[in-house]
Amino acid sequence: MASGDPPASSAKVLLLLVRRTDASFRAALRRRFDAVLDFYASGEPLPAFLAAAASAPRPPRAAVVVGAGPARVDAAFLDAVPSLRCLVSLAAGVDFIDLDECARRGVAVANSGRVFSPDVADHAVAMLIDVLRRVSAAQRFVRSGLWPVHGDYPLGSKLGGRRVGIIGLGNIGSLIAKRLEALGCVVYYNSRTPKDSVSYRYFPSVRDLAAASNVLVVACSLNKATRHIVSKDVLEALGKDGIIINISRGANVDEAELAGALRERRIAGAGLDVFENEPGVPAELLSMDNVVMTPHVAVFTSESMSDLRDHTIANLEAFFSGKPLLTPVHPETV
Amino acid sequence: MASGDPPASSAKVLLLLVRRTDASFRAALRRRFDAVLDFYASGEPLPAFLAAAASAPRPPRAAVVVGAGPARVDAAFLDAVPSLRCLVSLAAGVDFIDLDECARRGVAVANSGRVFSPDVADHAVAMLIDVLRRVSAAQRFVRSGLWPVHGDYPLGSKLGGRRVGIIGLGNIGSLIAKRLEALGCVVYYNSRTPKDSVSYRYFPSVRDLAAASNVLVVACSLNKATRHIVSKDVLEALGKDGIIINISRGANVDEAELAGALRERRIAGAGLDVFENEPGVPAELLSMDNVVMTPHVAVFTSESMSDLRDHTIANLEAFFSGKPLLTPVHPETV
Repeated sequence: MASGDPPASSAKVLLLLVRRTDASFRAALRRRFDAVLDFYASGEPLPAFLAAAASAPRPPRAAVVVGAGPARVDAAFLDAVPSLRCLVSLAAGVDFIDLDECARRGVAVANSGRVFSPDVADHAVAMLIDVLRRVSAAQRFVRSGLWPVHGDYPLGSKLGGRRVGIIGLGNIGSLIAKRLEALGCVVYYNSRTPKDSVSYRYFPSVRDLAAASNVLVVACSLNKATRHIVSKDVLEALGKDGIIINISRGANVDEAELAGALRERRIAGAGLDVFENEPGVPAELLSMDNVVMTPHVAVFTSESMSDLRDHTIANLEAFFSGKPLLTPVHPETV
Repeated sequence: MASGDPPASSAKVLLLLVRRTDASFRAALRRRFDAVLDFYASGEPLPAFLAAAASAPRPPRAAVVVGAGPARVDAAFLDAVPSLRCLVSLAAGVDFIDLDECARRGVAVANSGRVFSPDVADHAVAMLIDVLRRVSAAQRFVRSGLWPVHGDYPLGSKLGGRRVGIIGLGNIGSLIAKRLEALGCVVYYNSRTPKDSVSYRYFPSVRDLAAASNVLVVACSLNKATRHIVSKDVLEALGKDGIIINISRGANVDEAELAGALRERRIAGAGLDVFENEPGVPAELLSMDNVVMTPHVAVFTSESMSDLRDHTIANLEAFFSGKPLLTPVHPETV
């Protein structure tokens, strides 16, 4: 577009605070934007890196950030680089960004939109069937050579006919619902408000949803209202044949209560892709046969990473051209 | 119904050669039939048990059998109990029964029909997503405490958009197709003849099906024509990004060739519920990270066991009343 250095106010300078991206993503960003200040390539501590970015002749107006990255994006972060006017998250969940603080300062925020939603939904379905049909547990039995010794493995439970209560019927929750409906499950849901577009039964209370369901799938975003939304009470309402699937954020579930309920068989099993203190997992879960655990990988496939690259660049190009973001996030809609 | 001992020719006497049934199944059979000669309860060796049954005053006319049980039902077996006129299999697959020999002798055969089909289909779907998304492998990473040490786990691959070739579009194959279509896959298939009822693309050759597909799901019955239908050639046509899912019978796949192809990364992964020499599993598979293995449990859930009990009794009642079997199996249709 422009030749030579554009004026500081319009320069497309990016602050890159991401960890999990491939080399081609970085190369694509470098091709599109005037300068890319790359935290991981810098090798500097975060405060020094941010201070250097802020005092550069052309300070960055946009940043690419990811939840599993180095920093919460809060008032202190925004103070450190006051030139920022746009944050693009590589994740759908933006619980690591202080949205109210961003709104106050006029910093626009975009997330990954629906890029990952089908992958997350597939992963949730696989974990649910795995817990019900004991796929992982039966596999450990085979791998440890016990099949010829002990003979038949205990029966699992059927997927069809299960009543599955989904907490949060956004992009991801809706795709999970669609898949489970096709697999013969009955779908119920809870969300802030009932959705006119679906015929699933709505429960205004998560406790009532749990009481009516065999399975609870946690698919809501994490915010003050949803933290520990799966509480001791909810687990009790779900009951001893109940199963929890969590592909949202670890802190949506009271993990200590969940571990206790699993230990004492007050619920039947769990499929967990997320945890309260990642990469930490409560030690006692590691040896439980009725828990399927993955390391926060539900969102990621190599195919969706390339979609994410295109989507992120499109959001940034929109910002730098003064157009609306493709997938803006507002405090009141999270 | 009748009081007192019915005449030998009409007595509802059952030969029970099953291993994997719950106590309530045995109790239900005892309530419905005049006598149940139970191999496992007898504690006798099979030849002695069969000889005793054959020489009883009321020899059994029907037998309940299961593939994972003690005996192949062949000419020698039928010679040992010549009174048998009906065999009811607890499995859908009857590769352990010599159907030609049964037909020659006028012995009717029934199988489990569609009782297990949804369970098998669910299990196949779970294994496919597991292989693609590395659920089991990622779980071993978490359980062994490596997450905090190594950080991010490598990306898996997306389910949506996969071209899945199904070998055998019977009850089970059709339900797998329906599920995978709902999950965004493109379904192809091979069977003896094209089915008018479906719009999936038909391949008369399994090799061509493999060449066109990312995933091959083996869902055909085992017979002379299908033994090792997944051969070295077919694996080569599937190629290095290809995945094999087998929920039918182990011998439909050339297991030594499969192990070699996995070892040398000539295919990408496999989900196997069945093996050529169960409960034996090739030792080298046990340590492979790109293989998901379960101990022939795809067919079983506690819910379907109770459906199976009802279905088996209904087939037996039909036989003893001189009515057509509900789910007859004929040599030419397997």
